[in-house]
Amino acid sequence: MLDRGVLHQAQARMEELTKPPRSLGYLEEVAVRLAAIQGKVKPELGRGAVVVAAADHGVVAEGVSAYPQEVTRQMVLNFLRGGAAINQFAQVADCAVYVLDVGVIGQLPDHPRLLKRKVREGTRNLAQEPALTREEAEKALLAGREAARWAIAQGATLLAAGDMGIGNTTAAAALTAALLGLPPEKVVGRGTGVGEEGLRRKREAVARALARLRPGMDPLEVAAEVGGLELLAIAGVYLEGHEAGLPLVLDGFPVTAGALLAWRLEPGVREHLFAGHLSREPGHLLALEAFGLRPLLDLDLALGEGTGAVLAMPLLRAAARILHMATFQEAGVSRGG
Amino acid sequence: MLDRGVLHQAQARMEELTKPPRSLGYLEEVAVRLAAIQGKVKPELGRGAVVVAAADHGVVAEGVSAYPQEVTRQMVLNFLRGGAAINQFAQVADCAVYVLDVGVIGQLPDHPRLLKRKVREGTRNLAQEPALTREEAEKALLAGREAARWAIAQGATLLAAGDMGIGNTTAAAALTAALLGLPPEKVVGRGTGVGEEGLRRKREAVARALARLRPGMDPLEVAAEVGGLELLAIAGVYLEGHEAGLPLVLDGFPVTAGALLAWRLEPGVREHLFAGHLSREPGHLLALEAFGLRPLLDLDLALGEGTGAVLAMPLLRAAARILHMATFQEAGVSRGG
Repeated sequence: MLDRGVLHQAQARMEELTKPPRSLGYLEEVAVRLAAIQGKVKPELGRGAVVVAAADHGVVAEGVSAYPQEVTRQMVLNFLRGGAAINQFAQVADCAVYVLDVGVIGQLPDHPRLLKRKVREGTRNLAQEPALTREEAEKALLAGREAARWAIAQGATLLAAGDMGIGNTTAAAALTAALLGLPPEKVVGRGTGVGEEGLRRKREAVARALARLRPGMDPLEVAAEVGGLELLAIAGVYLEGHEAGLPLVLDGFPVTAGALLAWRLEPGVREHLFAGHLSREPGHLLALEAFGLRPLLDLDLALGEGTGAVLAMPLLRAAARILHMATFQEAGVSRGG
Repeated sequence: MLDRGVLHQAQARMEELTKPPRSLGYLEEVAVRLAAIQGKVKPELGRGAVVVAAADHGVVAEGVSAYPQEVTRQMVLNFLRGGAAINQFAQVADCAVYVLDVGVIGQLPDHPRLLKRKVREGTRNLAQEPALTREEAEKALLAGREAARWAIAQGATLLAAGDMGIGNTTAAAALTAALLGLPPEKVVGRGTGVGEEGLRRKREAVARALARLRPGMDPLEVAAEVGGLELLAIAGVYLEGHEAGLPLVLDGFPVTAGALLAWRLEPGVREHLFAGHLSREPGHLLALEAFGLRPLLDLDLALGEGTGAVLAMPLLRAAARILHMATFQEAGVSRGG
């Protein structure tokens, strides 16, 4: 919950700092909200953390991905060995990487940065049947909460989620469409690079899942219908981060879909969210617009793993520092007229 | 100069890394160019530096700024005490701040981060007469070179320039218009927040300076005609950084105007430049387009001091790390089809 008193104090301080009014653009708004989240007029952001939730998707049987399913597990191993983009970016952004296996097909080794909470080996095929039972969906969400608690206990002051799951932009499109009431063609994109035919199959799969939804389903029932396990875990990460009072950073389309679910379950989550970047996936912009969030970066990224969130962490840290600037009075600087 | 062999090796490696092709968007292009600048397929960026060049402008007599002239000196003192935006951003971006007095009106104290190379106390009024003699312009440029050498000697691996000078968006507009052959109305903006009448006076001042230019003047003569001292110093910073083989980051409108001059004096400078951000000043976009550079950030900043360049440094560091990712073969990850 935002501290409204601190929010107003931070807004007032912003007008006194040694810079022309509004000259730091959108970062001023970010700074004030960080102050209100932390309840400190001079917010401080230290180490960040990203929880990369990984799981497989039954819908890959429909031919919706350019990559074979085993890549999910292979990429988790890559995360654990430090070879992936998220590891490289986290290293220069003062961010710890935690990996959560919430439904990867195949076994994974024990590793100090891996939380093993496999709910099942991949979802069922959302184009054919409900992806998850409600109980499975709840378990995945709780696994995300647990991973976030772990990251927070180890000192995270800024929290993001990342995603890994071949086929997950199809599930993310279905979840986004379901939660925002949008048609499949508005939210389905090329993901990691599927061709024209694959795009048609993605739309078809999403349409079939949406056709099973009934009025009156609660958000968790909707999420169970389409999956994926890692999207539910991501919702859990943001719910837990919100309860812990942390600023939360969004990544691309799958992560933002998970965050939409968290928002439906707990409306207060939204006030803690910052949009790391704008993805090339068409549904991402619609989701960010629903949140009313402006992306900090717009670099044509479409990778996932939390990369766009982690890239934005230094910007959030810099925004927090704005409120540590000297005021005109403190610095003896004349004001404009 | 770019190492073309390394450029091609880095491009080839980019296609082998464990990510979908082009999924890191513009940062992939940045990474490859960083490799070619450093002559290393796996580029490494350490500590950054920003040289904030400060000087006054005779043209403030025309009423072109919302702030009184003494603010230039007051803000330099603020930089030295660490109270300004550039100090706060540099602190979280692993960047050292160096201040160069190349023409501030009034005395400044000795300080370990201040290089005192005052050429004269402010330029002459560019609306009435040549702002500088050619000799003064050369001195200012050399002062910028010296400041850059200082920063590089202290370990900078990534170099930016910043600007402080009440009235300097007027000089920057004149310099940009002169070097790119643009009319005043395209390049004159509101700077730190001047009103409608001030805007008209800025356009008028720029037009009068441009009317004095004659065909056949060399870039330094053009720059002397309009000033300012800090814009010339900024050109020197980029010329020196280019000679040292460093990646160079642009800030907003005045800094980019200085970089345009550096480019005219040494065409190779352009290959080392990265655009930190897109400013609200209308002339900035035109200058970046002339360079063919895409800004890394677009956050409605319009402060100067080097803030937009320093904010982008963590992104450049992250881009360099892309080439340190594992390849599909190294990580045993299956490729897409």
